[in-house]
Amino acid sequence: MTNRQWLLAEHPTGMPTPETWRLHAAAAPEPGQRQILVKTTWLSLDPYMRGRISPSANYTRGVAIGELMQGGGVGEVIASNHPDWRVGDLAEAMTFGWQEYAVLTPDLPGVAQVMKIDPALAPPQAFLSWLGMPGLTAYIGLFEIGRPKPGDVLVVSAASGAVGQLVGQLGKLSGARIIGIAGSDEKLAWCRSIGFDETINYKTEPDLRGALAKLAPGGVNVFFDNTGGPIHDAVMRNLAVAARVVICGRIALANAFEQDDIGLRASSQLIVSRAMVQGMVVFDWWHRRDEAIARLSALHRDGRLQTREDVLDGFERLPEAFLRMMTGANFGKQLVRVAA
Amino acid sequence: MTNRQWLLAEHPTGMPTPETWRLHAAAAPEPGQRQILVKTTWLSLDPYMRGRISPSANYTRGVAIGELMQGGGVGEVIASNHPDWRVGDLAEAMTFGWQEYAVLTPDLPGVAQVMKIDPALAPPQAFLSWLGMPGLTAYIGLFEIGRPKPGDVLVVSAASGAVGQLVGQLGKLSGARIIGIAGSDEKLAWCRSIGFDETINYKTEPDLRGALAKLAPGGVNVFFDNTGGPIHDAVMRNLAVAARVVICGRIALANAFEQDDIGLRASSQLIVSRAMVQGMVVFDWWHRRDEAIARLSALHRDGRLQTREDVLDGFERLPEAFLRMMTGANFGKQLVRVAA
Repeated sequence: MTNRQWLLAEHPTGMPTPETWRLHAAAAPEPGQRQILVKTTWLSLDPYMRGRISPSANYTRGVAIGELMQGGGVGEVIASNHPDWRVGDLAEAMTFGWQEYAVLTPDLPGVAQVMKIDPALAPPQAFLSWLGMPGLTAYIGLFEIGRPKPGDVLVVSAASGAVGQLVGQLGKLSGARIIGIAGSDEKLAWCRSIGFDETINYKTEPDLRGALAKLAPGGVNVFFDNTGGPIHDAVMRNLAVAARVVICGRIALANAFEQDDIGLRASSQLIVSRAMVQGMVVFDWWHRRDEAIARLSALHRDGRLQTREDVLDGFERLPEAFLRMMTGANFGKQLVRVAA
Repeated sequence: MTNRQWLLAEHPTGMPTPETWRLHAAAAPEPGQRQILVKTTWLSLDPYMRGRISPSANYTRGVAIGELMQGGGVGEVIASNHPDWRVGDLAEAMTFGWQEYAVLTPDLPGVAQVMKIDPALAPPQAFLSWLGMPGLTAYIGLFEIGRPKPGDVLVVSAASGAVGQLVGQLGKLSGARIIGIAGSDEKLAWCRSIGFDETINYKTEPDLRGALAKLAPGGVNVFFDNTGGPIHDAVMRNLAVAARVVICGRIALANAFEQDDIGLRASSQLIVSRAMVQGMVVFDWWHRRDEAIARLSALHRDGRLQTREDVLDGFERLPEAFLRMMTGANFGKQLVRVAA
């Protein structure tokens, strides 16, 4: 049984290319004691993965050249040496890697945990999306750091993305008025269809700062920042007094790991607005995942949470899917369906 | 009786000059009902005052051209129409303005409050310094936002300044290791003499970022930022995980109100460090002033808090004192003694 894998071929400088990874055919791995062997069905593409293939220091160890590309996935158990797991069970974990078969260790704690998927809650790939890491990111970032209140103006960038689409809808539940920023009118029309109050296309709006000032004359109370860069700058210039800013992502800068990120500094704005800015890494909050799943799945069941995926079919399309996500060509959470 | 006043003559672009203000001789004002007339003895020079003479929007209304320059002071009551105030009482208020006689309204609340000075606690000018607005700034910024813990590394810029000197000593009480940054070896020697653990001269250190990394290899847990600008950038690059940053001042940029503040953006660093950055304006915390005075005066009485003032004598020297403070030529809290 062959196990196809994507290995890292180079540390890209700037935007990765299809040559950043190389396909490798290994033997399928064997599960050890208290381990399970899983056949990958879905793999997840997420912006944090750009950091993992950078040679720079980041908050966790990256992928060395020649190593298996890291990434979360969902799969079906095809062999089990663990008493709690049976063949046919569905597993989700951050530790799949880009491969067709993975050996997982259910006893690992924290971020390395293996979650048994309850198929009654949602389709399995939802555990990579709105019930998975992006869901927890939106849930914690918004409610623990952003803390929207009724009447607040909430701005979210990458508004139709895996995290942004949830932030907007959860913010709406808090009674906030939601302004979504994204790079295509089609994405923004969808955002409005799921409840966003206002939208701005940052690619066609020549004066983002001014456009925001018009939509939010009293200022922005909560800013959920998925992009960094010039969108960040424009929103920061519109903060209301006592604003909260969640620094969640920096995909606009994702290829700038090797250079300094120069732009507007926010000191003066932060003083004038007495604003609070906090960077978050969702993996610090993994212990809250059950709570997020319970809340999000209940909302979805009640029809109060819409979600959208962008699916490519085929294991060989992982690099293509990665580049789609990096360039914003994806519309909704980027996934690859590896096997039926 | 003549009341000399300094009026704003122009909104300076860049660094103010002696021509920014003009001397004006008015008649001494008359106190109305429930007001007091005070003879100014001390006036305070503080960086926030640069914002007040900028035409740009800021957190409060500034000084219009031809208006009395704003500023806090201390004085002696020479006439009273208020039952709680007698001739000879000492008053402190943010609402003196640069003038020899001021009419104050003791019933005003909040930041406009008039404080009756208890001369047993400290010399009257202390109520403009470590028992006044800078004291409250250090006390609240450090304990409410910075929240140092034993073993933390705490970095403070403008270390010998009115706020910095207090932040370092209060941080020491929390068990933190204190690194002070300032622009002269003499200032830094004094900081060490009052308990700072390490100091860096930003004017002579060619690699501030690297110097900090050497002094704090585990990163900076608390950064109390009084300057903004390149010092800010260097410290931000050294933040430890879960760091807290107090954005208190921006004197390095104080003359850049009319231009964008370009430099390193911190998004990536904030994510990697999961750091929290908060801008503060001390006037939001005025209701905590009695608490700060009680704590700081007790520490001072016990010999655990050293303070330093930089005094110029003479009402006519207010513009000179302002420029001293703006350029960092002052050593300790900048004051002008207007009358004995």
